[in-house]
Amino acid sequence: MSRHIVVLIAVVCLLLSSGRALSGCNLDDEDCRESRMHPDLPSVNGRMEYQSKIADEEASDYWLEQGKQFVREKLHTPANTKIAKNVIMFLGDGMGITTHSAARTLLGGEEQSLAFEKFPHTGLSRTYNVNKIVPDSASTATAYLCGIKANSGTIGVSGYVDRSDCLQTRNVSNYVSSIAKWALDAGKSAGVVTTTRITHASPAGVYAHVAERNWENDSEVKSDCGADSNVEDIAYQLIHGEVGSKLSVILGGGRREFVDTTLNANGKRSDGRNLIEEFINQSSRNAYVENLEELNNLNITNVDRLLGLFQDNHMLYHLETDEQSNQPTLAEMTRKSIEFLSRNEQGYFIFIEGGRIDHGHHDTYARLALDETLEFAKAIQLARELTEEADTLIVVTADHSHSFTYSGYANRGNDIFGPAPGKPSDGKPYMTLGYANGPSYDKFYDVEQHQRQDPTTIITGKPRDEFPVTIPLASETHGGDDVAVFASGPWAHLFTGVYDQNTIPHMMAYASCLADGQIACSK
Amino acid sequence: MSRHIVVLIAVVCLLLSSGRALSGCNLDDEDCRESRMHPDLPSVNGRMEYQSKIADEEASDYWLEQGKQFVREKLHTPANTKIAKNVIMFLGDGMGITTHSAARTLLGGEEQSLAFEKFPHTGLSRTYNVNKIVPDSASTATAYLCGIKANSGTIGVSGYVDRSDCLQTRNVSNYVSSIAKWALDAGKSAGVVTTTRITHASPAGVYAHVAERNWENDSEVKSDCGADSNVEDIAYQLIHGEVGSKLSVILGGGRREFVDTTLNANGKRSDGRNLIEEFINQSSRNAYVENLEELNNLNITNVDRLLGLFQDNHMLYHLETDEQSNQPTLAEMTRKSIEFLSRNEQGYFIFIEGGRIDHGHHDTYARLALDETLEFAKAIQLARELTEEADTLIVVTADHSHSFTYSGYANRGNDIFGPAPGKPSDGKPYMTLGYANGPSYDKFYDVEQHQRQDPTTIITGKPRDEFPVTIPLASETHGGDDVAVFASGPWAHLFTGVYDQNTIPHMMAYASCLADGQIACSK
Repeated sequence: MSRHIVVLIAVVCLLLSSGRALSGCNLDDEDCRESRMHPDLPSVNGRMEYQSKIADEEASDYWLEQGKQFVREKLHTPANTKIAKNVIMFLGDGMGITTHSAARTLLGGEEQSLAFEKFPHTGLSRTYNVNKIVPDSASTATAYLCGIKANSGTIGVSGYVDRSDCLQTRNVSNYVSSIAKWALDAGKSAGVVTTTRITHASPAGVYAHVAERNWENDSEVKSDCGADSNVEDIAYQLIHGEVGSKLSVILGGGRREFVDTTLNANGKRSDGRNLIEEFINQSSRNAYVENLEELNNLNITNVDRLLGLFQDNHMLYHLETDEQSNQPTLAEMTRKSIEFLSRNEQGYFIFIEGGRIDHGHHDTYARLALDETLEFAKAIQLARELTEEADTLIVVTADHSHSFTYSGYANRGNDIFGPAPGKPSDGKPYMTLGYANGPSYDKFYDVEQHQRQDPTTIITGKPRDEFPVTIPLASETHGGDDVAVFASGPWAHLFTGVYDQNTIPHMMAYASCLADGQIACSK
Repeated sequence: MSRHIVVLIAVVCLLLSSGRALSGCNLDDEDCRESRMHPDLPSVNGRMEYQSKIADEEASDYWLEQGKQFVREKLHTPANTKIAKNVIMFLGDGMGITTHSAARTLLGGEEQSLAFEKFPHTGLSRTYNVNKIVPDSASTATAYLCGIKANSGTIGVSGYVDRSDCLQTRNVSNYVSSIAKWALDAGKSAGVVTTTRITHASPAGVYAHVAERNWENDSEVKSDCGADSNVEDIAYQLIHGEVGSKLSVILGGGRREFVDTTLNANGKRSDGRNLIEEFINQSSRNAYVENLEELNNLNITNVDRLLGLFQDNHMLYHLETDEQSNQPTLAEMTRKSIEFLSRNEQGYFIFIEGGRIDHGHHDTYARLALDETLEFAKAIQLARELTEEADTLIVVTADHSHSFTYSGYANRGNDIFGPAPGKPSDGKPYMTLGYANGPSYDKFYDVEQHQRQDPTTIITGKPRDEFPVTIPLASETHGGDDVAVFASGPWAHLFTGVYDQNTIPHMMAYASCLADGQIACSK
């Protein structure tokens, strides 16, 4: 539908003689307070100066037909009770419901849909973990990949293990296996893809068992547990661990975690190892790439296992890349991974993370967070196109929310990064987007004048525009609100309702006949 | 499950020699910023002093079994494709996903579920309207009751009608009918129940057609449209309108909108009318009550239609009532309504609103908002108990979200209204709950010291505790994030997915064989 913008010229305030003047009203009076709940009252502010609308939407028939059409589509989409040959799990790190709701407006308007928002089945995932009301990305990876809740900071271990407990981290009776292992055990292939370091908390949930998410390399382990702890770091587990050493596709950032600092100045290791070399030497059919060109030129017929590490640290934010970056997008990594894994006739499990949505939010970089969300949606769109809905279950979710807010009463067609209409009591504009807390606090406060800065003079269109917060914290925090789950393909209809996050892999396993629970093929 | 609290005594900081000291790190460095994303690092703060956990949750078997059990329950809940004799729509005004997520913790812990969170099917409702990205409660009532999106401030009219347009409000070609009318046309009974004034925006969606939500009485109409406009106010439409005059149950607040100010000092009308008397005089089988006692004592066998108006203005917040208030709870109104409507063998449609969740939020009274959410859940629990899941569809949703935030990293067992752990850069605590904007701004700022107040000295356990905000607005605003939909009963499985809010009544109509769309009984 083309977007017709109708500009309605202002109708001057209809009423001059209103009894509802607000300025002097007594806030102890419920009516007074209530009259302030509904801005743009004609009797107070006059009619809005203009409104941007989509012309079709003014007609009731437009909506009545659209509503009925949705019902018809639902009725003609029978439940898919086939066995899922393949399972693709997409994780938007920190992608709370506010985030994808706002990203939709960035995509082109509130009436648009991100690819996964078109999936037929949705649920709500409760993200609390064993020790925290609001969780981190390590404990949640354990939940949505291994099927159990655990303590913040821990990965692939039960709630008996406290964060950075060097002794318990080696106690295998506390280990829990991920759905990647369940898939490998069933003869399927498995892979992991992310835009963060491949050793970061979320992807590590696929293959690692550690009491501390920061143990990405041996130097970090030594620093916490001493030189002789025999605790295996996350990068080591990826290359030599039970699951890591069997993964067919491993794509992301984080080269530095794999190489000794004496071999490469960017390296973080201190054990003299180059784990990338060790991967290459494991088999002549192992391949390693480190940029987009190498990824594209790879002849996959000669390769059984692929490691791609595209940056020393996290991959760059999509909005901050150019051709020189020579870095694949999440969609490009997704395409290659699916090509690669599709060769196994038994099927596959792959975990694909849009990991930097979370990082954007932690810095109150709303533009970066929402752009990464759009990139995430593009990868999902591509995955749905490259696979058959009949035999491939795609599950999209987030690990946790953020303190991100999307509020005020902006007109349709407004810039999502712009101000909302209406004036706060200090006479300065306010933005549609914001955060409860974060590092931008001081930027939005004029110390000399002892008042808020005008935020529109600070937020000027830069990728790293920071957004306003209530509380000065060095890093904006996660949120405790439920996150959404979107499912398409076999047994997608299981994923509706409200459930604890750790239920997700049990539903995926059911659909794909994995592990020891009730499974679709035992019907 | 009983809640065992295990207090784990602190393990003293494991490491003194960490290289990850934060205080002096350079925020331009991505690693530095990232290290601040994960508080409670042992190498920085030492281990937390104590953690509150539920003992069972430490064992992986607890979660593995719980996850598998959810799958089994899903598999043993076949889709209900019967015809819905009855449809009950529950509306939590302003109950965004953050709100019910936080209310769950207030109920007794994150692992608890509000009654509607146990419903088997969930969806996400997109709330934008024709002219606003973030809508109000009038336009959204038109969406979820009449099946179309419209302009903010308008009720029961199409998007051709702008807010407070005195001419177009009388043009019946712009009118759209609600599912209450569809039900009445099918020979069913219908009713409306709310904790707000019964003439307020949400309940008015059941029975009114107006360009301006504030036209609750004739004085408001005159003030905007002049004395001779012939525009019927909302209270008048409830008593004499096509739908209003056929409603069997009408319970809520707002007596003042029905009575001339010369007849009763609290009355707001200026047309000399007493619409309550007019209702009573319509039939000897019409009954009127105005307190809990009268409601309880009512012999419903003698009554066809019931009007209950329990306050002049909105009903009191539940947390601010006592026995003297003599005001029914939402659950008590729900019980009587279902008793009443169940007499029609053709079935019924009823709209039941927890309307003051929204009011609590607008004033940043988080305690009141969450307590009203619990009351709302109790009414739903009762409705599910009083009806048969086999023949009664219950749909629970919200009209829009709020700018409400639930963030930080509080330990399990923490007071949801208390502070989160960790110190902001100004050394003062911060709260788990907050808002992007609202009237409390000044309260939390110490003008003399030019810094934040310690919020724990201001938030002290009062029902009307205000919570901190970023922006000073006279009334906290709505949010633009999607709201959840929960469904139980016939065709509840239709309600999964992401859809525009106006789709909801089309799905209810399908299930109950109402109106002119595709309907369940035409299969």
